[in-house]
Amino acid sequence: MKNFFLAFSLVIILISCTDSKTKPTIIQTVNKTDSTTIKQIFNSALTNGQCYQWLDVLSNDIGGRLSGSPQAQQAVEWGEKLLTDLDFDKVWLQPVMVPHWVRGEKEEASFTVNNSTFNVPICALGGSIATPENGVTGEVIEVQSLDEAEALGEKLKGKIVFFNRPFDDTHIKTFRAYGGCVGQRVNGAKISGKFGVLGVIVRSMTHNIDDYPHTGTMSYGDLSEQEKVPTAAISTKAANLLSEHLKENPDLKFSFKQSCKTLPDAPSFNVIGEIKGSEFPDKYIVVGGHLDSWDIGDGAHDDGAGIVQSIEVARLLKLNNIKPKHTIRVVLFMNEENGLRGGKKYAEEAKNNNETHVAALESDSGGFTPRGFSFDKSGENHELFKSWKSLLAPYGLHDINIGGSGADIGPLKDGSISLFGYRPDSQRYFDYHHAETDTFDKVNKRELELGAASMTSLVYLLDTYLN
Amino acid sequence: MKNFFLAFSLVIILISCTDSKTKPTIIQTVNKTDSTTIKQIFNSALTNGQCYQWLDVLSNDIGGRLSGSPQAQQAVEWGEKLLTDLDFDKVWLQPVMVPHWVRGEKEEASFTVNNSTFNVPICALGGSIATPENGVTGEVIEVQSLDEAEALGEKLKGKIVFFNRPFDDTHIKTFRAYGGCVGQRVNGAKISGKFGVLGVIVRSMTHNIDDYPHTGTMSYGDLSEQEKVPTAAISTKAANLLSEHLKENPDLKFSFKQSCKTLPDAPSFNVIGEIKGSEFPDKYIVVGGHLDSWDIGDGAHDDGAGIVQSIEVARLLKLNNIKPKHTIRVVLFMNEENGLRGGKKYAEEAKNNNETHVAALESDSGGFTPRGFSFDKSGENHELFKSWKSLLAPYGLHDINIGGSGADIGPLKDGSISLFGYRPDSQRYFDYHHAETDTFDKVNKRELELGAASMTSLVYLLDTYLN
Repeated sequence: MKNFFLAFSLVIILISCTDSKTKPTIIQTVNKTDSTTIKQIFNSALTNGQCYQWLDVLSNDIGGRLSGSPQAQQAVEWGEKLLTDLDFDKVWLQPVMVPHWVRGEKEEASFTVNNSTFNVPICALGGSIATPENGVTGEVIEVQSLDEAEALGEKLKGKIVFFNRPFDDTHIKTFRAYGGCVGQRVNGAKISGKFGVLGVIVRSMTHNIDDYPHTGTMSYGDLSEQEKVPTAAISTKAANLLSEHLKENPDLKFSFKQSCKTLPDAPSFNVIGEIKGSEFPDKYIVVGGHLDSWDIGDGAHDDGAGIVQSIEVARLLKLNNIKPKHTIRVVLFMNEENGLRGGKKYAEEAKNNNETHVAALESDSGGFTPRGFSFDKSGENHELFKSWKSLLAPYGLHDINIGGSGADIGPLKDGSISLFGYRPDSQRYFDYHHAETDTFDKVNKRELELGAASMTSLVYLLDTYLN
Repeated sequence: MKNFFLAFSLVIILISCTDSKTKPTIIQTVNKTDSTTIKQIFNSALTNGQCYQWLDVLSNDIGGRLSGSPQAQQAVEWGEKLLTDLDFDKVWLQPVMVPHWVRGEKEEASFTVNNSTFNVPICALGGSIATPENGVTGEVIEVQSLDEAEALGEKLKGKIVFFNRPFDDTHIKTFRAYGGCVGQRVNGAKISGKFGVLGVIVRSMTHNIDDYPHTGTMSYGDLSEQEKVPTAAISTKAANLLSEHLKENPDLKFSFKQSCKTLPDAPSFNVIGEIKGSEFPDKYIVVGGHLDSWDIGDGAHDDGAGIVQSIEVARLLKLNNIKPKHTIRVVLFMNEENGLRGGKKYAEEAKNNNETHVAALESDSGGFTPRGFSFDKSGENHELFKSWKSLLAPYGLHDINIGGSGADIGPLKDGSISLFGYRPDSQRYFDYHHAETDTFDKVNKRELELGAASMTSLVYLLDTYLN
């Protein structure tokens, strides 16, 4: 039926020119079947969507699912069963060894000024070592950057280093604000550790001034065991309070305690479902998100949303009787948050098996209202992708531009594959990202469904126009 | 300083043509000063905004503020004080008589099937009469439209009419779904009342399937006193449940009780603040929202957001040292929800005083992330407005098109005035609209601030390019 429509559909040719003297250049052929198909995809997502109900299960019944945890294993089993129930042509688990870090018991922090004690909301960063059982206590040196810490050098010795550069609120796209700060979290300990510091605390990565600490991965780089120090995030409200008090009382003592540890690597899996392509069965289009999440929320936006949207893509294709030419693989990647082992393993296996990957799309920016897609500057067909704007704009997808794609699909980059990231509105993302507030109730059903429909539409276009 | 920049700024001329043979048409002059100014406006809104804190007071300290209520009077006083504190050139109250409807005591509803009683979340519609003290009880006739009710005619006699057409979820812009259903709420009683019905219940105007009834205005038109019947909204979950049970038990009895009443019209005010124009002091640009709200939530999105954003427009102009050529009026309209008396009064006074209004902008679609502006098809300069897309797109404002403007500014329409509505993302609006869930915690600070900056930017452009 689809081919029938294709054959007889009206082709509208859009013409553009930069000035009146140049010849018209055909930049786009917009097929009426495309706009009809995309409308059908959105209609079915909004009236017959399943992804919101799936996310309810993943978030509320399974919950936070850090790599190596029992919940991560439950998520693997849930994903495998769901893909199987949805009647994919093939469903399998791809084994991968993952880091296994555990948070341990209660984390606590405080500082005292003039006999008044202020409790500080704190959480260990993923990968950090524990404090000694009684915690660490010391004077604090506040810095705004890795460079500032590096420059202070030996003056940091015996201190707790406090990285406190806030988000730059003037960025309209909040990922830019995150990008401008997250180095403090990832590399703060690596930079400070070599100077004999007691510990590292980092201002949480959020615009919000509130009481929630935001966790996330950190790295010791190639520090020796002796140089590694406990590292944690504190809430933005506490960071502001501490900073204020430090101005008046630079000698105040800060204490924190955490009992996290890294266990031996654990076995886990990427979960993969496949719809066989009708024309190019040996050429693959991947759509995915990451199945693991941080432990302190339930990972609804990061990245439960991307998981259920990716599965919904396959379901919406089937529901609308769209039979892809390429083989479509839905990949639920394991371990994006603290190792990227799943993404690396998938790419490694794809290479070992000489698989040709034409395109990959990741959703890992939350389940918010659609804004667009970004594509990696490597690969080809940029003008083709941009020409799809007129098809996608009616659904709020105006930003179709060069940019990042997704961490898990990044290892597939080979110069020719087209790598895409789904880009929903980013204003609320860092309210919840890696915090205990990332929970199912923060996800709006229609926004999630619109995202799934957007992704399905892009996969449909990639499948239709790429070879 | 601004004029200095204007004089020396680079003018970029964008040229467009529909095919290669036509002459180039200049559709836009984009001034570098404009993009710089707009960037400054956004920066200041995001780093130094006040509107979120104001909304906290209006929502949490004052709360729901239906026309004629003590809270509406508190809101008037709050608005007058705030505008005065912000050092407007002139602040005044414009008297207007408003309807005064009160909800009364506890509302309740239920239906019984096979000795099982189901309680139904219900709320009276604004303007409805009460039930008798013991409520009304009767059989239910479910209809999907006003036409269906009209066609049933005398068969409705002695029954409770249940308008149950749900939102069409396939509309991407949710106001279209609302527009397709709200007639049932507004005119259900007017259509049914003449057939001797016992009462009218209406499915709540929302996409969500939940337990919250959504109130809103209704009209009896020119029905006689005897023909008027009590009218209420029930939650969507209850509507679905009732509809299911009616299929099996068409004779089930539904009961509801409400004690609302309409008191004599009450005195109230529009609150107006003015910044005198430097070049055209007798030509006005209005920016506003409505100060009243429904009583069951705290009116944070509808329309506390529009109120604080409108005030923020004036503050951001001052803060960025933008001295408008036209006189800018911030108008906090009273009584949009159940009478539009404030909007009508403002237009009437403007006409009486022979005031020339060049443009008006209303924000009454919630405090969500920016999507664009719509402008009324009356008026001129449509191509000019569309040409601003390139200036506004970096802030997520892609939809600059003909459409509605705002209820309160509608009465200003005279064929030449440019009427604009601010159009934020609409996905979440009807989750909260007219329900007890429309509360401050549903508003995201950055989304609200981006809206205020968007509106300020449009007012700046209108002031700069219109005469």
